[in-house]
Amino acid sequence: MKQEFELFFKKLLGEENAYFDEIHKRAYSYDATRKHYLPDGVLFPRNERDICEILKFCNENKIIIIPRGSGSGFTGGALAINGGVILSFEKHMNKILEIDLENLVAVVQPGLININLQKEVKKYGLFYPPDPASMEYSSLGGNVSENAGGMRAAKYGITKDYVMALRAVLPNGEVIRAGKRTIKDVAGYNLAGILIASEGSLAVLSELTLKLIPLPKFKKTAMGIFPSVQSAMNAVYKSLASGVSPVSMEFLDNLSIRAVEQKFQKGLPVDAGAILIADVDGNVKEALDEDLKKLQHYFLEEGALEFKIAKDEEEAANIWFARKNCSQSIAMYGNLKLNEDITVPRSKLPKLLEGIEEISQKYDFKIPCFGHTGDGNVHTNVMVSDKNNEAEVKKGYEAVEEIFKLTIELGGTLSGEHGIGISKAPFMKLAFNEAEMNLMRNIKKAFDPNNILNPFKMGL
Amino acid sequence: MKQEFELFFKKLLGEENAYFDEIHKRAYSYDATRKHYLPDGVLFPRNERDICEILKFCNENKIIIIPRGSGSGFTGGALAINGGVILSFEKHMNKILEIDLENLVAVVQPGLININLQKEVKKYGLFYPPDPASMEYSSLGGNVSENAGGMRAAKYGITKDYVMALRAVLPNGEVIRAGKRTIKDVAGYNLAGILIASEGSLAVLSELTLKLIPLPKFKKTAMGIFPSVQSAMNAVYKSLASGVSPVSMEFLDNLSIRAVEQKFQKGLPVDAGAILIADVDGNVKEALDEDLKKLQHYFLEEGALEFKIAKDEEEAANIWFARKNCSQSIAMYGNLKLNEDITVPRSKLPKLLEGIEEISQKYDFKIPCFGHTGDGNVHTNVMVSDKNNEAEVKKGYEAVEEIFKLTIELGGTLSGEHGIGISKAPFMKLAFNEAEMNLMRNIKKAFDPNNILNPFKMGL
Repeated sequence: MKQEFELFFKKLLGEENAYFDEIHKRAYSYDATRKHYLPDGVLFPRNERDICEILKFCNENKIIIIPRGSGSGFTGGALAINGGVILSFEKHMNKILEIDLENLVAVVQPGLININLQKEVKKYGLFYPPDPASMEYSSLGGNVSENAGGMRAAKYGITKDYVMALRAVLPNGEVIRAGKRTIKDVAGYNLAGILIASEGSLAVLSELTLKLIPLPKFKKTAMGIFPSVQSAMNAVYKSLASGVSPVSMEFLDNLSIRAVEQKFQKGLPVDAGAILIADVDGNVKEALDEDLKKLQHYFLEEGALEFKIAKDEEEAANIWFARKNCSQSIAMYGNLKLNEDITVPRSKLPKLLEGIEEISQKYDFKIPCFGHTGDGNVHTNVMVSDKNNEAEVKKGYEAVEEIFKLTIELGGTLSGEHGIGISKAPFMKLAFNEAEMNLMRNIKKAFDPNNILNPFKMGL
Repeated sequence: MKQEFELFFKKLLGEENAYFDEIHKRAYSYDATRKHYLPDGVLFPRNERDICEILKFCNENKIIIIPRGSGSGFTGGALAINGGVILSFEKHMNKILEIDLENLVAVVQPGLININLQKEVKKYGLFYPPDPASMEYSSLGGNVSENAGGMRAAKYGITKDYVMALRAVLPNGEVIRAGKRTIKDVAGYNLAGILIASEGSLAVLSELTLKLIPLPKFKKTAMGIFPSVQSAMNAVYKSLASGVSPVSMEFLDNLSIRAVEQKFQKGLPVDAGAILIADVDGNVKEALDEDLKKLQHYFLEEGALEFKIAKDEEEAANIWFARKNCSQSIAMYGNLKLNEDITVPRSKLPKLLEGIEEISQKYDFKIPCFGHTGDGNVHTNVMVSDKNNEAEVKKGYEAVEEIFKLTIELGGTLSGEHGIGISKAPFMKLAFNEAEMNLMRNIKKAFDPNNILNPFKMGL
């Protein structure tokens, strides 16, 4: 980075908010992909005005900017793959600005950690449902930029369903406001709609207005043990089509069950084809009971060997333990995990799991699967036993590509939650035609003509 | 229109699907604004391929295209204000293509009338909630293009909350697919998000995939009579903030009550400040009872003179009669109705109604108000007694502008449901800054570089 650029940033933000030393650059060089790319500097804006000044300067001088929440992304969205400055909101712009109890919205800064909002609004009997697995450390700005999902999506939807309004700074330093604190707003283009999931490539979010809902009073947890993964997948989509609305409907396949059992010895059914775990919630006990009755009916009808309702919170926590420890437990199958977050229409889940089993045999990899089947979102993990064996790793990626192809064939998407970033960019051509890719490039240009905002991501 | 262009269209679509005669042009010259603009022709595409060919030809020859559903819009979105050809879906592209009972989605063509989808899915115990007042004649393509709302928005949201995927044709004739039949999909930009509410100015919708939900089993209707419109507005936002989730929460002010009573003699309380009508629904009777109990509590706390729960469907229909006949009844106050669909955050409703009362006095117009207060959406009607008195009409529009200013001051929007079109285009500058307007123009250009698709609308 040119000396004069460094001086500009230091003068604008103060020495304590603009860093160009090796230690800071290294600290902001990575994310959850475990890949490293050194940026040219790290900036901590104190407010929206700082963002405006930074962007204006960068736009004039063609300096690349990478907006960064907590760096917990799985696809490299926050990586400085072509250098540039990191714009981090974790130091200053991490606050709750307002909780509006009359209109049930929260106004927050982009660096606020998801769980901090959840905890705060709970004090008022309110609820912010989006719960990505990273919620204890991922930022809401990151959540909006990736349109993060989570376990509760089957009933409560995903981040986009809770974004009411955004303030954002365009690359030329101008501030735009998108959306309102109202359910209905159809004046002008849906700018908030296109900013959500844009992976920091169109504008820099400076303020988020998020919808809250009343916290449901009751919650219950149920579990079903199935002879095969197909029978479980049938139970998922049939019960949901019948009108049950579980908060979450999660599953573990046999490989995942075995891995958790080997690591933790919890007495899990290691011969089962799959376990389904479902939470139901609401304000009226009778409604929960009705939901549970329907779940039991469809689970048993599809061949469940066992159906159990947790008696209390401790039993519920025990049931959830297996699901929550899948990700770490499956490490026993290999030291390189190629994990993807594909999603298909729920009725295609049985076919998807069948296809993955075939791919597993064809390539001779263990592919444990678990995830959010209530919304068709399956976490597939191609386990490569030796990450230093180049041929094996290459074969692993071939298996991943085949999983993507199968997913697209079934009407599904490359990514249900994690975004595209750099990890999935090579696969965009499987999912999008040239017209769609060109249109996305044109939209990028409409916001960011100099291509300074998180460029060369998403296959654009 | 050039002879050669007419010949091209007639050859492409057949004589029976391409018209350039006066009668057809006149028949497609108007919409619900009652304004008239003659188009140069009317085309009835039979399928998506036709749309592609039409658009490609028009793009090459710079012919303006106005996509048109049923022409029921209130803001002139379907008017050929600068000539061009009308693209109408009502003749051929008006079908339900699929009802997917396993994934709870419907795939439909843009010309399908909203009510026809509602009726069909009801046969399967399913529910398509968006219910614009025009639902008996407005098309779903139009609903998506305007992001139509309706009475049920307080609980069930609006059209955008039910759009899962779209197929659309770009002005250059290329087909794009946006979204999937899945809850989660974060691959690439949210193209469906920006197409919704774009008023036919970015691409021509050729297929809509809409979310369905299970039809709730029970419904109940309650009514409260309030001494003042402010007390009613307080009851609205306080009961909603308490966690009640009514399907709809509608209101009539005193002028509206009097108008309906004068026309229909139903024994309405003509001295009341306002009436609130609320529907609650669900699958468990206990849950409905709990909601009704809460409504009663907050209505009475805010000073309701009477609270009544309808015993049966007939009583419910009687209660709803007043609300459903507001729009026609208020004609007694003037022969020109300047009606707007402003929306504010719910807690601002008391201030909004107070301000409208002041504007009414200042300009000496009756301004009856009614509408969907559950989502902050108020239909305001500046009643001009003589539409041929130019000075009066001008003053009427000044009153409207003042209502818009007040709405924006209160954090509200120019349009909750009707869109901008031409009617509200002059007011866009009240709501959007230059950066926002420029960005919208750039987005328009990214989709439609030759500006052939419904150009010069929305203040762009």
